[in-house]
Amino acid sequence: MAQRIITLTTDFGLKDFYVAEMKAVILSISPNATIVDISHEMEKFNVKMGAYVLACAAPYFPKNAIHVAVIDPSVGTKRRPILIQTKQGYYIGPDNGLLALAAKKQSIEHIYQISNKRLMLSKISSTFQGRDIFAPAAAHLASGISPTEFGPEICKIVMPSFTKIVKRKSLLIGEVLHVDDFGNIITNFGELEIEELDAKVNINFKLKNRLLKLKLCKAYGDVKPQKPLALIGSHNLLEISVNQGNAAKTFKVKEGDKVTIYHPKKQKYQKLT
Amino acid sequence: MAQRIITLTTDFGLKDFYVAEMKAVILSISPNATIVDISHEMEKFNVKMGAYVLACAAPYFPKNAIHVAVIDPSVGTKRRPILIQTKQGYYIGPDNGLLALAAKKQSIEHIYQISNKRLMLSKISSTFQGRDIFAPAAAHLASGISPTEFGPEICKIVMPSFTKIVKRKSLLIGEVLHVDDFGNIITNFGELEIEELDAKVNINFKLKNRLLKLKLCKAYGDVKPQKPLALIGSHNLLEISVNQGNAAKTFKVKEGDKVTIYHPKKQKYQKLT
Amino acid sequence: MAQRIITLTTDFGLKDFYVAEMKAVILSISPNATIVDISHEMEKFNVKMGAYVLACAAPYFPKNAIHVAVIDPSVGTKRRPILIQTKQGYYIGPDNGLLALAAKKQSIEHIYQISNKRLMLSKISSTFQGRDIFAPAAAHLASGISPTEFGPEICKIVMPSFTKIVKRKSLLIGEVLHVDDFGNIITNFGELEIEELDAKVNINFKLKNRLLKLKLCKAYGDVKPQKPLALIGSHNLLEISVNQGNAAKTFKVKEGDKVTIYHPKKQKYQKLT
Repeated sequence: MAQRIITLTTDFGLKDFYVAEMKAVILSISPNATIVDISHEMEKFNVKMGAYVLACAAPYFPKNAIHVAVIDPSVGTKRRPILIQTKQGYYIGPDNGLLALAAKKQSIEHIYQISNKRLMLSKISSTFQGRDIFAPAAAHLASGISPTEFGPEICKIVMPSFTKIVKRKSLLIGEVLHVDDFGNIITNFGELEIEELDAKVNINFKLKNRLLKLKLCKAYGDVKPQKPLALIGSHNLLEISVNQGNAAKTFKVKEGDKVTIYHPKKQKYQKLT
Repeated sequence: MAQRIITLTTDFGLKDFYVAEMKAVILSISPNATIVDISHEMEKFNVKMGAYVLACAAPYFPKNAIHVAVIDPSVGTKRRPILIQTKQGYYIGPDNGLLALAAKKQSIEHIYQISNKRLMLSKISSTFQGRDIFAPAAAHLASGISPTEFGPEICKIVMPSFTKIVKRKSLLIGEVLHVDDFGNIITNFGELEIEELDAKVNINFKLKNRLLKLKLCKAYGDVKPQKPLALIGSHNLLEISVNQGNAAKTFKVKEGDKVTIYHPKKQKYQKLT
Repeated sequence: MAQRIITLTTDFGLKDFYVAEMKAVILSISPNATIVDISHEMEKFNVKMGAYVLACAAPYFPKNAIHVAVIDPSVGTKRRPILIQTKQGYYIGPDNGLLALAAKKQSIEHIYQISNKRLMLSKISSTFQGRDIFAPAAAHLASGISPTEFGPEICKIVMPSFTKIVKRKSLLIGEVLHVDDFGNIITNFGELEIEELDAKVNINFKLKNRLLKLKLCKAYGDVKPQKPLALIGSHNLLEISVNQGNAAKTFKVKEGDKVTIYHPKKQKYQKLT
């Protein structure tokens, strides 16, 4: 049988053995599965961060990959375990918004509420359903069990709430979506919004009450080391960076912070010293 | 030949290349081995923590899995390298208590002192036997070499010393076995001891000289966010947690701290404010 | 087709999904590749550290392993993407010194500048060539594409600059090459230099203006816990360590610091208290 890819995205960290137990369960049921860690260092309980990360990474995996994600502050309560079938792959995890962003991007075909106990571990803890429900579901799916076997089809799932961009006459208001491990400040402004802006060389920002004029670059190395810049990053979102430095530390910015872009010619700014 | 699972548990961390060298050696000898990391973030030199983690995770792996563990403050001295054969799988590492807890749970059948130099790397360093002795031993075992080939059978191994629970008329005294990455405080009180206690709704604890009355819950979400609770966790041990918070930080608790449970009706407590 | 090993060494960290996207791209092109992480916790932008780590770990991998390394402060600029073929394996990454040390140790046979766009992702970002150029190159090579297909052969590559040992009449001056996660201080003094020194039992060091006489040991456990020692480590380099402690913290030493060794009999020292 063909090897199937199962990805894992959690807030479990790598100190504990929780991720290993999920892998052990998967390999017990589906010995040929190829397991790939997306990340286990999601901020604890931060479903929105997980939704963003999964939506970025999932499209790069081969068709029919099975994505298991567990950031699950309500584990053991009435929130539903779900399996989403899309045109490109499968998503398994809690119905709390974690899977919905990535799944929607890949065209949702069916959603099932996982309830078939024969496809779970025999003993279900109420604190670790990643091991007891989600890992076995992924492994059984990888082994060829039909999605329809897992439980009844359902119509609605929880969507994560991301702030939309506010467009005004002379400015755009967005937010910091993610700060990566390099300190790059990834915003929710897309490539299209920046093109429409017709910004030529520089973009004028307001960030934490500070006015910034930043060069719109192609590469980090287009400015000198330790100098700030703006560019369209590897997921087609506007990034504020510092070449060989840490922009989030430089500008004291964190996820969720407001980012304002001024239209060219209507702008005020202050040169970065 | 069938694919064999080799797990790795160490205190090496993920910054260095030590784990990668073990994997390189394994794949050089046994190219079809499936390697699974249990954890490499064990506290440096903390054999007891490793023994606990290995004993939790190992039972979830398929039969005949080979578990390599290296937390080895006495590497290069006279402590023996051993291979333990159990009913369920194999354990390879130093004879310092690290393997014994997990192996005992799976019924020890034979213990061998690893001494056959043909099944080690040609040059043995005295500082990195994980790479030079344990990784090749696991890979050769995965490739079908009989356990009896590794060295003479021995009878006794070092056992890790875990504190036993003290039972008094009106109270039970145990300890904090593990603080996980969420800050959950995992105690050495088992499910049975809590059932015998017949605690109904609440359990009364003394923790760091603080008296606590905590609701015995099924799920973290049974109390409001940031509120403390007690529950039987995913390994059937009593946990003290804070819903969507960090109990170890809240109560300033660390591994090894004493935990007292008072029998219902004989209890004194102070309401948590 | 035979399974091929692809190793990854980066400064991406494990919080983000960048490593996962590289793996997704590799498995999309070469589903049977076995991917092994060497480390993703290299210090950001520290090409020299990556070069050292890759040169240590690579020789342990089987023949024909493909090593992808990405520490790339000049990503998206004119620095070239290269593929190096050696007697033992292949190296893929930026031409900034990262690959050269490891490749040279394994006898370089050919160097190619990666430029064939058919062997890259269809859209090349200027900030994440690990995913868009290097991962697909490794996967295509693993799938059997000839190295000559990737681009024109070139002759010269950037070499990393490591400090050479200075030999004087009464002393040797070297430097701290690496501080590992245990705090072991790994120097650039090799086994041969220490043998030539004919140091018998003790070696006399100057480290951060402190004179130290350290026992040349075989194993960490040859001195009492928390006591310092010197030994030839698992990569045949002189290490300064503290048994079950952290030498780098004890002696306040970091990578790049100077280490002086005095010839026996010409030495001055101060007993460690």
